[in-house]
Amino acid sequence: MGAVRTDLAMENLGCNSSFPGVDVHRWEESDIQLSEVVIRTEDAARQLGKPCGNYLTLECRLLCEHDPDARLAMANLLGEELSRMLAPSDEAPVLVVGLGNRGVTPDSLGPATIDKTLVTRHMLSGDYARSGLKSVCAIAPGVLGVTGVETVEMVESLAHKLHPRAILCIDSLAARDSGRIGCTVQITNTGIQPGSGVGNHRKALTQDSLGVEVIAVGVPTVVYAATLARDAFALLATPESDSGEEALASMERELLGTELGNLIVTPRDIDAIVKDCATLIAGGINRALQPSLSDAEIAQMMD
Amino acid sequence: MGAVRTDLAMENLGCNSSFPGVDVHRWEESDIQLSEVVIRTEDAARQLGKPCGNYLTLECRLLCEHDPDARLAMANLLGEELSRMLAPSDEAPVLVVGLGNRGVTPDSLGPATIDKTLVTRHMLSGDYARSGLKSVCAIAPGVLGVTGVETVEMVESLAHKLHPRAILCIDSLAARDSGRIGCTVQITNTGIQPGSGVGNHRKALTQDSLGVEVIAVGVPTVVYAATLARDAFALLATPESDSGEEALASMERELLGTELGNLIVTPRDIDAIVKDCATLIAGGINRALQPSLSDAEIAQMMD
Amino acid sequence: MGAVRTDLAMENLGCNSSFPGVDVHRWEESDIQLSEVVIRTEDAARQLGKPCGNYLTLECRLLCEHDPDARLAMANLLGEELSRMLAPSDEAPVLVVGLGNRGVTPDSLGPATIDKTLVTRHMLSGDYARSGLKSVCAIAPGVLGVTGVETVEMVESLAHKLHPRAILCIDSLAARDSGRIGCTVQITNTGIQPGSGVGNHRKALTQDSLGVEVIAVGVPTVVYAATLARDAFALLATPESDSGEEALASMERELLGTELGNLIVTPRDIDAIVKDCATLIAGGINRALQPSLSDAEIAQMMD
Amino acid sequence: MGAVRTDLAMENLGCNSSFPGVDVHRWEESDIQLSEVVIRTEDAARQLGKPCGNYLTLECRLLCEHDPDARLAMANLLGEELSRMLAPSDEAPVLVVGLGNRGVTPDSLGPATIDKTLVTRHMLSGDYARSGLKSVCAIAPGVLGVTGVETVEMVESLAHKLHPRAILCIDSLAARDSGRIGCTVQITNTGIQPGSGVGNHRKALTQDSLGVEVIAVGVPTVVYAATLARDAFALLATPESDSGEEALASMERELLGTELGNLIVTPRDIDAIVKDCATLIAGGINRALQPSLSDAEIAQMMD
Repeated sequence: MGAVRTDLAMENLGCNSSFPGVDVHRWEESDIQLSEVVIRTEDAARQLGKPCGNYLTLECRLLCEHDPDARLAMANLLGEELSRMLAPSDEAPVLVVGLGNRGVTPDSLGPATIDKTLVTRHMLSGDYARSGLKSVCAIAPGVLGVTGVETVEMVESLAHKLHPRAILCIDSLAARDSGRIGCTVQITNTGIQPGSGVGNHRKALTQDSLGVEVIAVGVPTVVYAATLARDAFALLATPESDSGEEALASMERELLGTELGNLIVTPRDIDAIVKDCATLIAGGINRALQPSLSDAEIAQMMD
Repeated sequence: MGAVRTDLAMENLGCNSSFPGVDVHRWEESDIQLSEVVIRTEDAARQLGKPCGNYLTLECRLLCEHDPDARLAMANLLGEELSRMLAPSDEAPVLVVGLGNRGVTPDSLGPATIDKTLVTRHMLSGDYARSGLKSVCAIAPGVLGVTGVETVEMVESLAHKLHPRAILCIDSLAARDSGRIGCTVQITNTGIQPGSGVGNHRKALTQDSLGVEVIAVGVPTVVYAATLARDAFALLATPESDSGEEALASMERELLGTELGNLIVTPRDIDAIVKDCATLIAGGINRALQPSLSDAEIAQMMD
Repeated sequence: MGAVRTDLAMENLGCNSSFPGVDVHRWEESDIQLSEVVIRTEDAARQLGKPCGNYLTLECRLLCEHDPDARLAMANLLGEELSRMLAPSDEAPVLVVGLGNRGVTPDSLGPATIDKTLVTRHMLSGDYARSGLKSVCAIAPGVLGVTGVETVEMVESLAHKLHPRAILCIDSLAARDSGRIGCTVQITNTGIQPGSGVGNHRKALTQDSLGVEVIAVGVPTVVYAATLARDAFALLATPESDSGEEALASMERELLGTELGNLIVTPRDIDAIVKDCATLIAGGINRALQPSLSDAEIAQMMD
Repeated sequence: MGAVRTDLAMENLGCNSSFPGVDVHRWEESDIQLSEVVIRTEDAARQLGKPCGNYLTLECRLLCEHDPDARLAMANLLGEELSRMLAPSDEAPVLVVGLGNRGVTPDSLGPATIDKTLVTRHMLSGDYARSGLKSVCAIAPGVLGVTGVETVEMVESLAHKLHPRAILCIDSLAARDSGRIGCTVQITNTGIQPGSGVGNHRKALTQDSLGVEVIAVGVPTVVYAATLARDAFALLATPESDSGEEALASMERELLGTELGNLIVTPRDIDAIVKDCATLIAGGINRALQPSLSDAEIAQMMD
């Protein structure tokens, strides 16, 4: 089962309604499907290929049709969930980190979100208490090949300097099911793992590595080509040749070793998808981090 | 056979060394594989799904490794071939058109090439004869969803005004074989067809529609997901289940009707590929259109 | 008087409350100062250096402090005034043209506005009547040095093809008073004149040249360096050396002939000013061109 | 004298051929004017408003005419001078920092230079010795208002992590004489001072603050509006009213306190100037930091 290449914990579970060491809850709110996966044991973590922790998924197929009402409902729900996960605020800033590569559209969700995040840390000296604004700073550290610096080196050194109360990482994810591209948001308190994301991070961004709470928010923007090939095969295989999950997983591993391993699958209108999702996530972040601002004030400031 | 979805005429032929109504020549120059496909009869055109005309392909696998010498050799050869295809120059400008969407990396080859094309039309009044420069203008008309204007409407109306001696269209292409992404250049005198390219043009840009010679230059940057699935299937099918080309083609048609039809497959480092190929193509265009400039002068002006 | 270099008709008048052949009205609405200058005679046009026609100015100093409420009030008022100036809509599109150079921040207002303009022409086939949307297309034709094509050539040829019911040109303007940068919007039915704007257009975009109503909307983003030097001089000159308007105008003309003639003066935070003004103008345009959409719908679609 | 607002030490000296505590040398190489100013005493530093250290200026008026040969000659000379100033290389990386704001053209020289700097640190594990390449990493930390993090905080924390052997800062400068915009390069071992640059840095980037050698390379892209007004005044003042340097300096201080203090003066074609200068500086940096590469190899890799 671990061979399924997806950054969404809910997809690792597949259609299993129960899995030893894992709690799963599914419910619906205002046309949004929520699912919470809690990986409790190291054994389950190993089998699912994801570290222990909480994984919350918000899903709304209307998002793919660029429905602005669905986007607003998702942003509100994301804001509420982030508020719940973040420790109560003090004067320390939250550091928002936009992972990924601006130059590759399906990998640009992180930087695009940073562009719409309300940054306040530089305005708060003196009148902090009066304004009611909370301290937020935001960076898009770029990619290793462009800067020669690992993302984790940059975030680690900055965290050492700024002593943020939490780090929020935004990233483009890979899904198993292409139908989830652009319409699913995953929030997890386990941070970012090596090998995950569209750009395939080489090192972890976690509470362990950074010494501070790390929450990761992501949206799938791609499927790996090897996964797609595997699923196409499964779809088309005649019943008798259907040699089961294990054979398919082995096939996917084999494909990853070929030139397919470097290919990603993405929708033709990925620019519009990234733009919508960046607005959605930044909207949720701004609501969670600036509770003293009304929705209308946030919308105006994000314009 | 027509079902193979590719913008490269050489791929339509597959491994057939001969095809009725089609001339094929293959040779090699300085580590570059060239192939020329001439579709001579309407019957062959229908069967291959491409209009009658010449299709020249330059291919060099070293390009994918970002080898600057290979890029230079390709630019030189492309320049020579373009010079041969273009009618002798007079005072009328050549209009270079960069098709595609800047916001979607694998579809941005056209606009990226325009950025490096030497534009001279505005500098030639008076001293034309003296400078030896030829008149060139260049536009990137964007995509229908952004402007509300069809590319062909924009090019047609501009051609009507500027009376260019030729139109050169640059576009991102779809290949059948992902191994050709970023290392193959196709030049054709048949222009741009509806449904071709990564962005899937809705109308033709051809000598018929524009009233002037139209040469199209393209590089594959994607494979359609349906094609990839089909090929993965063919690769994995056991000999006895290999029901032949016809079954695969039918499978691909079926997949195109599903959500797969909107998905493209592209390498993770597509930003570097597009950058290299834009430099290559603009280098070839500048050599062909400005014969009075030395290679060193062109390189300096493109910096 | 004609020597004053400004694109704002209200500044040509200076502090004159009356001028032969010119009607001037000034009033205030919701903290916005409005002034309407109507140049009625050719004689006045020659003296003021502006063609006959209507020039409406909306001014609100709070805009410079990035006040989102002021921006919204201005967008609403701009929308109302544009609705009044535009002929009643039919099925023909409105063509919105963003003049200027994306690569030079103070000259980028036009292209930045286009990015936020709702483009609909490509979506209206068939369901036109049902959706209630009006047909809008939008282009940013770039600058002559980049494309080799004059803006007026591009707009003229496109107008010939699309038969728009009106053309709306957006441009960055030069003011005389640096205090008006970023907080003044001018709307005029006289189009764009040669030599005006930050990029100094070489040809006119007017009803005469294009054969269709041309409305120009602009915001000052620069002052010419020669104007600034002149005003600094006037400010500092001791009363006895104050040799009057004529001497200053002559001085400005002289300065324009020096290297100063190529220099522009702009605020350090011109990026934020252009961003705010593009949101404002696009908001006004979208309200005027899509009367069937509510303000909330427009805001969501512009996100 | 200290009141002259310029980031070029050679302009602080004015036409003085000698100044106590300062050594000045001027010479010419291949059509480039060089001047070296060495501020030796704290007293001179205070009077000139610049810290003790070396300031080398390369000047070539042909650069303003976008002459590619002049650009190449300057890049070569800059490369030689940087090689001389940098300590002999070891395995520690050089950190190149592009200061300024991508969104404001005249302040974007630093980020634009970073885009053309050869970054190698991520490729050197293992084959370091074999490739002969030296370790380089490069960042453009953005501006405080966008990230909420001071540039110096970001560079300081990264330096603490990466232990570079030197830091190279690239910045847009303010000149006193607009004729120097785009054609003068200053190299100094004193780093970046508070209040300098187009974006007016708030904190120092120096060997003292960062604990490692800091070399700053800059090109003037603006003149402050207050300086321009002062110079226009001096130019126009009649001999008898010419009350000397002191009166002008006092006038400039006064103007800086008005709204003029926030205005910058820049050429209309600042986009082309920044592009050329970024190519020039990155060319010089790449030559100095990669002595094992030939000029042709560097040019190809920068394409």
